[in-house]
Amino acid sequence: MVSMKTLLLSMLLAAPVVAQAPAKAPSPADILAAAPAGDWEAVDDGNVLLLEFAGGRKVAIQLANAYAPGHVANIHALVREGWFQRHAAVVRVQENYVVQWGDPTEKAPLPEEVELSPPGGYERPGKPVGFRALPFKDAYRAKVGHAKGWPVATDGKAHWLPHCPGMVGAGRNMPPDTGSGAELYVVIGHGPRHLDRNIALVGRVLSGIEGLSSLPRGTGALGFYEKPDQRVKLVSARIALELPEDQRPRFEVLRTGSASFAKWVDVRANRRDPFFVRPAGGADICNLMPPVREVTR
Amino acid sequence: MVSMKTLLLSMLLAAPVVAQAPAKAPSPADILAAAPAGDWEAVDDGNVLLLEFAGGRKVAIQLANAYAPGHVANIHALVREGWFQRHAAVVRVQENYVVQWGDPTEKAPLPEEVELSPPGGYERPGKPVGFRALPFKDAYRAKVGHAKGWPVATDGKAHWLPHCPGMVGAGRNMPPDTGSGAELYVVIGHGPRHLDRNIALVGRVLSGIEGLSSLPRGTGALGFYEKPDQRVKLVSARIALELPEDQRPRFEVLRTGSASFAKWVDVRANRRDPFFVRPAGGADICNLMPPVREVTR
Repeated sequence: MVSMKTLLLSMLLAAPVVAQAPAKAPSPADILAAAPAGDWEAVDDGNVLLLEFAGGRKVAIQLANAYAPGHVANIHALVREGWFQRHAAVVRVQENYVVQWGDPTEKAPLPEEVELSPPGGYERPGKPVGFRALPFKDAYRAKVGHAKGWPVATDGKAHWLPHCPGMVGAGRNMPPDTGSGAELYVVIGHGPRHLDRNIALVGRVLSGIEGLSSLPRGTGALGFYEKPDQRVKLVSARIALELPEDQRPRFEVLRTGSASFAKWVDVRANRRDPFFVRPAGGADICNLMPPVREVTR
Repeated sequence: MVSMKTLLLSMLLAAPVVAQAPAKAPSPADILAAAPAGDWEAVDDGNVLLLEFAGGRKVAIQLANAYAPGHVANIHALVREGWFQRHAAVVRVQENYVVQWGDPTEKAPLPEEVELSPPGGYERPGKPVGFRALPFKDAYRAKVGHAKGWPVATDGKAHWLPHCPGMVGAGRNMPPDTGSGAELYVVIGHGPRHLDRNIALVGRVLSGIEGLSSLPRGTGALGFYEKPDQRVKLVSARIALELPEDQRPRFEVLRTGSASFAKWVDVRANRRDPFFVRPAGGADICNLMPPVREVTR
């Protein structure tokens, strides 16, 4: 919402040559820029799914094997067997909701080691290890916060990943089916949290979501593409660990237990940098997705 | 997230020929389909801004003259003078945030009757007339609900429109500037509610947001397009009332004081239709934007 004039102005103000600029409250970006290296944690290359869709649309996804082990194991098997690039395409883009990809025919046989409808994926029992609760309320009757680099919601008896923009889930048919992981979607709109604990979330996008969220919306029911030639083919699916080390993208997530993360949350909830008139005093869990950066090796 | 198989299945189940289908809990769409005509309210054609961007991207916006009267008066003047189609283009598309359009040069003179930085637009004093509070919590420390067809947040002393997907605001420079309305943006991501009461919201999109949300993201800072030829020109800006009556699109919003709206909210927060395993028991204000439909005259 800043105009280009303001943007240029703030870039000027940020330049070190302005020696006498008044001390200003830090922005969230300032907090991230100042975070020490130790407050960032490298994402395990064995958990990074690298997808490339037609048109050079590259997407990196961190798999949530702790939350959906069965579905994630299936995804690894589907990648190993080359199933995704043989069969999958974006079949659905629904405004303010999801982009979904899978086998348009729904007939391609799955590799033998893929378990149909594995148990789990909706919630984990008990309290999240390393949970840091937010001091803000939640419309969905949960306690929300972060644990080990993930956004988390809990009712004290169980905990689960929330449906925020960038979260990736496993499409399924009617319950008790939980999906296999062969059909995936990513949230692109205001977090559809009513899906929490109703669908297995299997990961989050680390980079490249804009290649999917900018696709034309489907005009069929639920945003399905009506014509086969509208589908966007998935041309490559790899686990980062398979690539030679110098060819792997490398991602880091801000440690959710770090002092920098706590500061970042506080500043996101209480903006006092020059553009702002009135700090909100709160923030939604989906506006507090742990920051990610791509770094060179 | 339903697969195409499930979609087809549910379409079959919805067909009246399946006489013995078990009674199922209604979906939000079922509630809307069953709402009596009197529960829908026609949007005043004098408050509907019709934009057309290059490539046939048509967007209809309901102006919030009760909330930002100065900015809305300016928008009417800019439309009357043909200023938007002479000068404006989409200049910024930031992932999970906003699409913004205005004069890329920021030098085109504004019509004389346009008031720069009009007062108001951030909040209105007192309690909202006709307010129906939601029984759900809010991360931004407000009481949230609906009044007269709009989502509303209040702290008891004042009330304001929340930054939800589809809400339209007036870009501005540094405070105390409030913007003029010549530079506008629409929210396309998870509601950036930290902007509430920091920017004047001037309306909401009634139709066509997908033409903007599917634009390529800008690669400059804050999603600004770096090359002039990436900008998407605004080719036409009209108020619906200017058009011959038979050429005006006609929109209706579900009355937020109606029984149908209350049922719709309840069903959105407590999904019990067949796909769902566990109702959420709550819903965020930004997932409860009053339903809109376009009807033929």
